Amino acid sequence: MVAPSEPGRLSVVLVATRNPLNIGAAARAMSNFGFSSLRVVNPYDSAFREARSAVGAAELLANAEEHTTLAAAVGDCSLVVGTTAVRHRHLRHPVRRLEEGARLIRRRLATGSVALLFGSEKFGLSNDDLSHCHWLMRIPTREENISMNLGQAVAVCLYELIRDPKPPRAAEKSMLAPAAEVERITEVLTQALRESGFLDRRVVGDSEQRVRRLVRRLRLPQEDAIMWLGIFRQIVWKFRHPEFSAPPEE
Amino acid sequence: MVAPSEPGRLSVVLVATRNPLNIGAAARAMSNFGFSSLRVVNPYDSAFREARSAVGAAELLANAEEHTTLAAAVGDCSLVVGTTAVRHRHLRHPVRRLEEGARLIRRRLATGSVALLFGSEKFGLSNDDLSHCHWLMRIPTREENISMNLGQAVAVCLYELIRDPKPPRAAEKSMLAPAAEVERITEVLTQALRESGFLDRRVVGDSEQRVRRLVRRLRLPQEDAIMWLGIFRQIVWKFRHPEFSAPPEE
Repeated sequence: MVAPSEPGRLSVVLVATRNPLNIGAAARAMSNFGFSSLRVVNPYDSAFREARSAVGAAELLANAEEHTTLAAAVGDCSLVVGTTAVRHRHLRHPVRRLEEGARLIRRRLATGSVALLFGSEKFGLSNDDLSHCHWLMRIPTREENISMNLGQAVAVCLYELIRDPKPPRAAEKSMLAPAAEVERITEVLTQALRESGFLDRRVVGDSEQRVRRLVRRLRLPQEDAIMWLGIFRQIVWKFRHPEFSAPPEE
Repeated sequence: MVAPSEPGRLSVVLVATRNPLNIGAAARAMSNFGFSSLRVVNPYDSAFREARSAVGAAELLANAEEHTTLAAAVGDCSLVVGTTAVRHRHLRHPVRRLEEGARLIRRRLATGSVALLFGSEKFGLSNDDLSHCHWLMRIPTREENISMNLGQAVAVCLYELIRDPKPPRAAEKSMLAPAAEVERITEVLTQALRESGFLDRRVVGDSEQRVRRLVRRLRLPQEDAIMWLGIFRQIVWKFRHPEFSAPPEE
């Protein structure tokens, strides 16, 4: 995970949230992505700390700050960003797409504290809430269904903050079989094809090269190489011993 | 929104989902991000189509395909990708980070159909489910809390599929005031500073340039220019008419 240099400097601020399960879901996503500072302003249900949706994030939820005003909740932050589903609300604020907004937030986290605000499920952030914001950020949802579930919106925003812009392309792939093992398989397969009469039916000069290329295109995983070798050896053995049902023990 | 060229070719496949609210949440995220094909394999609760969590996605949920085997659910897809929280499960599959996996899925959607599999909330995808997959994809969650809520995981994966790798940097910002308006404000502010005695206290030669640079650094929004001009004019007026409490009507 490529976390911002100072993930502890980002506070998720949930304003006037109605459903405590959504507060728990936000806490879970924060824990998934490595953020720890949750602040809650005037939640509808004061028993939100028991939300069972905060799987793996009970401690984070227990440590959440509760505030009665947004001004108090963001008082120590040098950048306050509001989230909105709306594109142009005749607001006095710039609205940035999440991809670009997250880039600016990451940069600011290197030197200062940032508050990321989410409004209530029904009404979003009020105009008064918005007046505390330096700018707004929107998740690029479709015009036909712009409004996201709160817990999902928090997860998507935090993911964008920690995503790696340049992941290694070959990371965590399984190892491919080395050339020598691929060649052994090719030899036995060629033998099997010859003994099956498959190669006789095709009167081409470069049949061996064709089989070699065919096997190379499989991109055989190393861990499967012995299995494939065994399969083709068994086939060759069966051609030579049609009277036996299984090869003798070695 | 920068959608994949053929979002209709991506099917979200939910395998053995226990909580119908999670199926609804997945449907909502699909609708938010422009995907329409939902397939459900052996859901725990067969009444999932009534899930109230599918806000704005009731039709999508009504049209979901229900299958009794995973093989049937992915039969028409040329790429089958399983999601997993686990990094190295001693699997016979390459595991790609979401950022890289989504890139490959987008590319494949240009020419063929792709299935994106999510396992049950408790157990994820079974080994039998995984044997249907070409490779696996993982969301880069923290080692300490790798497991995401199902609806949040679906939202994050689909967001990564539609996110714009190069959003316009200045998009949707508010317009800045043009230079002429900024200069008028600068002039009146300079006048106010001079009449207040502020400039007399600093014996520097380039005080006008200093004020000009100071105002430029504000990045004044166009819509606020008249307000600021009015504020400084009022200040200058008050210096000249200390006996009045307000300027005469114009």
